[in-house]
Amino acid sequence: MAHQPAPAKPGRPDATRRSEKSRRAIYDAALALVGEVGYAKTTIEGIAARAGVGKQTIYRWWPSKGDVLLEAFLDLSEQAAEQAADPDADPDAAYAIPDTGDLAADLKAVLRATVDELLDPKFETPSRALAAEGVVNEQLGREFVAKLLEPQLQLYVRRLRAAQDAGQVRPDVDPRIALELFVSPLAQRWLQHTGPISYAYTDTLVDYALGGLAPR
Amino acid sequence: MAHQPAPAKPGRPDATRRSEKSRRAIYDAALALVGEVGYAKTTIEGIAARAGVGKQTIYRWWPSKGDVLLEAFLDLSEQAAEQAADPDADPDAAYAIPDTGDLAADLKAVLRATVDELLDPKFETPSRALAAEGVVNEQLGREFVAKLLEPQLQLYVRRLRAAQDAGQVRPDVDPRIALELFVSPLAQRWLQHTGPISYAYTDTLVDYALGGLAPR
Repeated sequence: MAHQPAPAKPGRPDATRRSEKSRRAIYDAALALVGEVGYAKTTIEGIAARAGVGKQTIYRWWPSKGDVLLEAFLDLSEQAAEQAADPDADPDAAYAIPDTGDLAADLKAVLRATVDELLDPKFETPSRALAAEGVVNEQLGREFVAKLLEPQLQLYVRRLRAAQDAGQVRPDVDPRIALELFVSPLAQRWLQHTGPISYAYTDTLVDYALGGLAPR
Repeated sequence: MAHQPAPAKPGRPDATRRSEKSRRAIYDAALALVGEVGYAKTTIEGIAARAGVGKQTIYRWWPSKGDVLLEAFLDLSEQAAEQAADPDADPDAAYAIPDTGDLAADLKAVLRATVDELLDPKFETPSRALAAEGVVNEQLGREFVAKLLEPQLQLYVRRLRAAQDAGQVRPDVDPRIALELFVSPLAQRWLQHTGPISYAYTDTLVDYALGGLAPR
């Protein structure tokens, strides 16, 4: 999931620095705008005006507003992952779910970080605008799921498979469905305002999912 | 949750019949319109024109478009519940989750009926429009949750409490959180297009939630 910066033009360090600055301004403008006016009313022209660049600069790098927004969100997720990670750690490790051998503890830690991200206004406002559009615009919804959400869910799949190898999850369980028992409740409370979200809540979800609701 | 029809004016059966016909036309128009143009662009004027009534007729019964839509959705849910129920049964029983003593079977039956409803275009299109608006419009989202979604979730709470009394669910489990282990994954797949929904899928959710992911 590591993000590749735009290739720098060789021998032109000033241009590269300017490009990088424009790229950052465009991401910020795109996220701010979609949070304020929604996906439908966000335009390349509006992003360009807000970022202080010509719209040709945007079209040179991205074919459509959907593509700009997708990269802006990928960048935002990376920043969140990097902030949450140990600064001394391998940067790629920021995208993996830790495996300390204690599955419940590892899942709780990742879900607590997700709670922080969902409640961070910098993330929340544009994410809601995009999620709302995805509900009614199936093509956009599927594209953003495939590129943004599903790669994150696959990290849970990997962690649950390791737990199956370690005998901590039943071998007959489908990890892709299993992860939804703790990920989807958090997503629904956040998306639909069906209840408060907190560390205590996500900890409880993990305990219920692993232990089951029926007496043992 | 039984819905009260508008009080009929005494001694004016024709007026009552006309009112009922107008009310039905207004519900149908409101649901069709919100599905086509979204919540933000749906207006009382648009609903009135489509229903073939004067807008004063709508304002006499409902103070805002949000209120018309809320009642139209309540009516739609009731129709779905009545269709799913045994026609000879007590109409109020249509809103309860059956208690045959087999918790897994009862939950699976209700979730299968929900899958049918979610895939029914008559329900799906307006529901998506409303859900999308609720993601970005917190006040509307909370109102529709309180009046439409939460009463349905409370039926699961009641069924899980009965299962606790019968010793089939751990006594320390909070039923309001527990129900989310099988309800929210279905909601997220439907809302966000994160995966296909089917009877096999919801059956699996119930089995995982009750039995837990960890080996017994």
